This record gives sequence, C-alpha cells and structure tokens, in this order.
Amino acid sequence: MGKKGQVEDMKGKPFTIVAVGGTFDKLHRGHKELLRTAFKVGRKVVIGLTSDEMVARSKGDSKIDPLPKRREDLERWIKEEGMDELAEYDVVVINDVYGTAIHDEELEALIVSEETYERAAMINKIRVSKGLKPLVIVVVPLVLAYDGRPISSTRIRRGEIDAEGRPP
Amino acid sequence: MGKKGQVEDMKGKPFTIVAVGGTFDKLHRGHKELLRTAFKVGRKVVIGLTSDEMVARSKGDSKIDPLPKRREDLERWIKEEGMDELAEYDVVVINDVYGTAIHDEELEALIVSEETYERAAMINKIRVSKGLKPLVIVVVPLVLAYDGRPISSTRIRRGEIDAEGRPP
Repeated sequence: MGKKGQVEDMKGKPFTIVAVGGTFDKLHRGHKELLRTAFKVGRKVVIGLTSDEMVARSKGDSKIDPLPKRREDLERWIKEEGMDELAEYDVVVINDVYGTAIHDEELEALIVSEETYERAAMINKIRVSKGLKPLVIVVVPLVLAYDGRPISSTRIRRGEIDAEGRPP
Repeated sequence: MGKKGQVEDMKGKPFTIVAVGGTFDKLHRGHKELLRTAFKVGRKVVIGLTSDEMVARSKGDSKIDPLPKRREDLERWIKEEGMDELAEYDVVVINDVYGTAIHDEELEALIVSEETYERAAMINKIRVSKGLKPLVIVVVPLVLAYDGRPISSTRIRRGEIDAEGRPP
C-alpha cells in the first residue's frame, strides 16, 4: 500500500481493535463515558467483564450484581445508545486485571480511566517483555458526582449517589 | 439532535480538536508516532511548539535547532506524509509546558508520550480547578532505538543514534 492508500485508510476510526475492561456493576455515568470513548475510537471493541470469581476474590462485596445481570445491563445500554452501530463489540469474561490485553497481538489501544492508568502502563511493560507492541493508552477522566467526588459503583452500592451521580 | 444524529456524528474521527506539544528538535520516529496519532484521532490538531526562549530556559542545550528550522522540518514532514489531508492543523508557539491546553474550552483531547503523561494529568487538574472540562489523554508509547532504549532528541544530538533510532 502506497502513502496515499495509507492516508486514505486513516481517515475513519483511528484504531482497528481496542479493549476496555471492568466489573461494570450498577452501570453508571463513569462507565458510560469510558465505553462511549472506546466505541468512538475503535472499529472493534473487546469488553473484558470481570467474572464472579474475580469479583469475590478482589472486591469481597456481596452487593455486586452477578455476571448475567451485569452483562445484560451492559449489553442493553450498548443497544439503547446505538453503540453497536458505531463499532463491533465482543464481551469476554476475564479472570484477572490483564484479561486478553497482555497477549492479544492485534490489539492497538486500551481505554482506561484515570484510576487504572498505572495498570495499563504495567500491561505495556508485560507486552514489551514478551516482544509484543505496546498499546496506545486512552485515559478517560473520571466523571464527578453532584458533590464533586468521582462517581463509583462502590458509592452507588453504599447509597451515597445514584448512577447519574445525583443524591439518591 | 436526537440519539440517532448523535451516533451518526460519532462515526468518523473521535475528537473535534486535539492538542500535542513539544520542541520537536531533530524530528524523529518518536515525534512522528506522536503526531501521527494526533492526526488520526482529531479533526483539528493544535501543535504547541516550544519557543527558543523556553528552550533556552528549560533545556540549556545550544545544539537545539532554532524555531524557524524546527517549524520548517515539522511542517515539511506533515505535508510529505499527507497528514494535512487527514486533519486541519495549526502550529502555535508556546512559552510554557501548558500552552493553550489549560484554557482552551473547545479542546477535547491531549496526545502525549509516556514520559509526559503526568504533565497532562496536571493540566487536567488545572482545568478542573478553573471549571473547565478535563481532557481525554491519549498516551503514545515511546519508540525504541536499535539498542532497546527510547529514541530521544537528546540522544540524537549526542550522536548515539539517528532520527530513525539506528546507530549513526
């Protein structure tokens, strides 16, 4: 492909395959901002959804919805928002924070929040140590609730705010 | 605009205006990767180019090319690569590391390298403190030279590597 062809190929979405990951419990505005960015930058989005086993291991919070409910809420929102018209997507269940990102050769970018940037930088170190190309990391700012503190599933579960960041 | 219109509007480039900054001395593969990413993700790219005054103040290296030469090399590459067909661009001379990024209301994303992620995070803190929306930060991995260490203008000026990261 000549330079002209390469430039033509760059006129649409910047990345072919991108990944995003999380527990996506009580799907809130922060999650939605993260997902919207992933669907905007990638032609295909791989969504790593943490397994119930991983949730039990790492969060130990019995109020987190089980996988089928989290998956259903996630996929319903994707369809309601028309995100599925923007990019292809695939939900894969993951059992650790790295998911498929440390071995997927075709992956080009990771979409993360400010809170998980360091983890993404670690994923790149592991990729380079394995001879894989490091990923572009797209860092989405946290969305703040009415009180100026970030929206999080933990705060929603505690009843401090609703999924939009308003007083409950 | 309805949801359908919003989705339609998201099918092309993900961001309307993005910014990237640097001294861009001895334009090398690392710079090019950074610029290429900026032109891929933004419809308009604001390139903050450090002034000679800022170079003298912060780098104290007399081997850094003067602004007209750095600007010429940068713009020549943009045209040679056809980047100007991908996005509009504007070169603005900056006198500090924040440039226009801490007060531009229309800016949506900053493109930085791994080395300058913390500076971008600081720009977001300043923006939020001023009531401006924080930016999406797109972090481009450093490009490694033949010896596995990052390509940098400093290394090129020292004669350790050429602009492609090869032995000189």
